[in-house]
Amino acid sequence: MNSLKDLENAASGTQVDLSRFLGWVSFNEQGLVPAIAQDHATGAVLMLAWMNREAIEQTLTTGRVVYFSRSRQALWRKGDTSGNTQGLVSLRFDCDADAILLSVNQLGPACHTDRTHCFYLDVRGDSVVVDGEPVS
Amino acid sequence: MNSLKDLENAASGTQVDLSRFLGWVSFNEQGLVPAIAQDHATGAVLMLAWMNREAIEQTLTTGRVVYFSRSRQALWRKGDTSGNTQGLVSLRFDCDADAILLSVNQLGPACHTDRTHCFYLDVRGDSVVVDGEPVS
Repeated sequence: MNSLKDLENAASGTQVDLSRFLGWVSFNEQGLVPAIAQDHATGAVLMLAWMNREAIEQTLTTGRVVYFSRSRQALWRKGDTSGNTQGLVSLRFDCDADAILLSVNQLGPACHTDRTHCFYLDVRGDSVVVDGEPVS
Repeated sequence: MNSLKDLENAASGTQVDLSRFLGWVSFNEQGLVPAIAQDHATGAVLMLAWMNREAIEQTLTTGRVVYFSRSRQALWRKGDTSGNTQGLVSLRFDCDADAILLSVNQLGPACHTDRTHCFYLDVRGDSVVVDGEPVS
């Protein structure tokens, strides 16, 4: 396995070293890749945030999800302020290694608005409708 | 409702015009926003791709998901080549209006590798393991 392309037709169970694979990840110009957090228990998509290589490595090492905050330009150990941590269940890359899917055990609401998830702005016809109240 | 911030504490059911809301979306420097496709039937996260304003509008108007292909720098009406279309069930924005969650009726495999979804590269310990075979 010398490239990402080799994995496309590889049989299920084929392995490649993580350190090698991380060299194949398509980080953007800011060194980031989008990461989707999905609730392990419910399947709900909770949020989308960004990771750099260090965030990926810390997430895998500690078992707690760490993002990179674009506004603060710093690692963001989710829950350090709010207490609403995300325990890592699994971390998967997509076919092009330019997106990550996290399965997480979410403690409390995932959204900074205190809603269970961030995707509460629902397009209905010619309007966008707020769908869901803050939990607290 | 004069800004996205006003919607954060708004009650469920609060509405804003779609055309106005689209002016609040945080497109990146390339005019794009990441869009997550989730299978309506199974809840599986299928893929992540990108949309510009025109892709969002065409998706909403036609009821069939249209992305913007970064490699081809053109609208990408998913399934035009493969037949593996995505019928739109719902389109939601997140709290910061910098990500989209699509609920879709996926026809055939979502991934260009003919797997049902794109997130088949699973980190396990110090390895990345291919999880899942092409469908065909």
